Amino acid sequence: MAIDFKKELETAARNMIFVHDPDLLIKIIVRMVVDKMNVEHASILLYKPERQAYLLTVSGGSLAKKIPVGLACFDKDDSLIRYFRERNNRLLFNNDVLTLENAQAAIKAASTKERLKHLLTDVLYQMQLLETVSCVPSYYRDDLLGVLLLGKKKDGSRFTKRELDFFVALASNMSMAIRNSYLFKELKSELDKKHQLFMRTTIALVAAIEAKDNYTHGHTTRVTNLSIEIAKRLAQKNKKTMDSKFIESLHIASLLHDVGKIGVPEQILNKRGSLTIGERNKIKEHPLIGVTILKPIKELEHSLAGIKYHHERPDGLGYPEGLKGDEIPLIASIISVADSFDAMTSDRPYRAALYKNDAVKEIKKLSNLQFNPYVTKAFLELCEEGKF
Amino acid sequence: MAIDFKKELETAARNMIFVHDPDLLIKIIVRMVVDKMNVEHASILLYKPERQAYLLTVSGGSLAKKIPVGLACFDKDDSLIRYFRERNNRLLFNNDVLTLENAQAAIKAASTKERLKHLLTDVLYQMQLLETVSCVPSYYRDDLLGVLLLGKKKDGSRFTKRELDFFVALASNMSMAIRNSYLFKELKSELDKKHQLFMRTTIALVAAIEAKDNYTHGHTTRVTNLSIEIAKRLAQKNKKTMDSKFIESLHIASLLHDVGKIGVPEQILNKRGSLTIGERNKIKEHPLIGVTILKPIKELEHSLAGIKYHHERPDGLGYPEGLKGDEIPLIASIISVADSFDAMTSDRPYRAALYKNDAVKEIKKLSNLQFNPYVTKAFLELCEEGKF
Repeated sequence: MAIDFKKELETAARNMIFVHDPDLLIKIIVRMVVDKMNVEHASILLYKPERQAYLLTVSGGSLAKKIPVGLACFDKDDSLIRYFRERNNRLLFNNDVLTLENAQAAIKAASTKERLKHLLTDVLYQMQLLETVSCVPSYYRDDLLGVLLLGKKKDGSRFTKRELDFFVALASNMSMAIRNSYLFKELKSELDKKHQLFMRTTIALVAAIEAKDNYTHGHTTRVTNLSIEIAKRLAQKNKKTMDSKFIESLHIASLLHDVGKIGVPEQILNKRGSLTIGERNKIKEHPLIGVTILKPIKELEHSLAGIKYHHERPDGLGYPEGLKGDEIPLIASIISVADSFDAMTSDRPYRAALYKNDAVKEIKKLSNLQFNPYVTKAFLELCEEGKF
Repeated sequence: MAIDFKKELETAARNMIFVHDPDLLIKIIVRMVVDKMNVEHASILLYKPERQAYLLTVSGGSLAKKIPVGLACFDKDDSLIRYFRERNNRLLFNNDVLTLENAQAAIKAASTKERLKHLLTDVLYQMQLLETVSCVPSYYRDDLLGVLLLGKKKDGSRFTKRELDFFVALASNMSMAIRNSYLFKELKSELDKKHQLFMRTTIALVAAIEAKDNYTHGHTTRVTNLSIEIAKRLAQKNKKTMDSKFIESLHIASLLHDVGKIGVPEQILNKRGSLTIGERNKIKEHPLIGVTILKPIKELEHSLAGIKYHHERPDGLGYPEGLKGDEIPLIASIISVADSFDAMTSDRPYRAALYKNDAVKEIKKLSNLQFNPYVTKAFLELCEEGKF
């Protein structure tokens, strides 16, 4: 039995490393201690950097005995915390563990300094309030990351030296796992920030480019939202063909689908009268100009097809390549429907906006000619449900 | 002695978690084994996902005995590897360790299946080639991450059960640490990719915007490079005032310093004749237009001052706010010098480019009037050294 218990603790300690949420981590530890160690209750005071305090966030054990979570919050200067944070105190007892008996003995001993006696008297009082018989601190280097608080053993006996040694080993593994989880958390938050930076900067620059064209205010945002809704609907219908990477590529492609318009002179974009053939051909260059701008960016490779082919049509009458039917990549077919719907429902230099219902009818009519029927179907469903 | 050795192994195992480079990690492990375990040599076959093979990357021990690194590369189907990858073999011996003696005994035993006898005979041959007496596998779940190969003990005795148990615990910690390091590596590579995506997309969009202005081709790239060189020189002179975050903010600010020109009509930017006061004022709006475009992006807050104030002058004659002397943030003062130098040495609609030497003289003359003297000094040093 003793051996199994040791093995289980070790296995658990090892797996802690893969728990990257400190709160979940200490929940697992407390549960394990309560399950395996026959204690009435156990809990952990965990340091919360954002509060600069130690919080009792998890507590386990028989209901009547366990400490109510959230009640206990200890400042850095609280006696219990101060005792473990001050290095010279720690040297007093073996292995950093503080037990009721050791504390009581130290308070009585003639050799103990007055200051420490006072501190320990406070600590004893706090331990009794928390019904705690042993405290096991968890350090990373010199930082106190947390304290494991142990209630009485169910059979009333004292913890053996061997049991305390295990708690020390556990607290040490815990500190390592907590520290590891912090490192992951930091890295993930950096990744998240970088993602936001990329998305927001792209959106801002695209909006600035779009502002050159008086008639397309907000167009990109609307096309992006609609494209993603259509893709999500397609994903519901057929889980295999679409994953989160596709959605991300589509998101970026929609944001950048008209970026090539930066290469079209302002006076053509904003011309009030009808366009000459030459002017129309200049506008039709925008998908390829977009590709030229973005092609060097390796990370955008899966988005490029959406930008290049969003004016292709299944009947082969689109541009720039006149692709037909299934030759047109899905990512471009989705943007095509979203883009056309938004264009139809916005004012343009050469005509007023259509009513939404008329635009929907138009898209339905052009399914298979201008639009991928599979994408059109998903779009029409969304419209029927009043999503647009 | 035995206890210390155990403690040292445990401490080392615990610290492995913070080594996020698998190759460094196994180097540390091999060194530890060779230092503490009195073996003639030790090495690790580590799985390399990019090669889909197990490589002997680290070897330690007395020179004459250790296995030359790089010589051994094992496919997934190699006998030694296959033996450990097939689950049913593993059950044969205690604790997954394979020793020469166990292998020999199993080959002789009547109960061993022919297929396994053949496999073990191959494995034995490989172990002898590698002068290995024990192999300790390291698994993460069911994946074989690596194999620790142990040479003979220096005193010629066999490994005790206790020693083998330690190796098993070590291999288990090793698997955890390797797996952890892979997770970090993945996350870091994702972060790196996202950073590249951000930088490259910003550069591409800025270049596209810049292309609207016939006279500024490549301007942004040159200003960015020069700004960073100046900042690095300033950092050499005074380490306290500049950190890598400042350089990153400066990098982004230089890339985006002229982004507000997107709000200036093309015909003004490209006008050949002299500009009217109204047109000149329109151009002077570009720093504030840039701020308007980018202000919503929280992550860019430290770059904004560089964009907003890169046309301010210490004598107070700049724009948009007419700041004086030290009121102008350093980030803007650096961009100002780099921007002006590049503008002076490029052709503009209203004048031809200056020679580089004349531009340098001009900047020197305008130190303290148009340019921050501290920044000017760093710039002049770089010029004298032929960096520009």
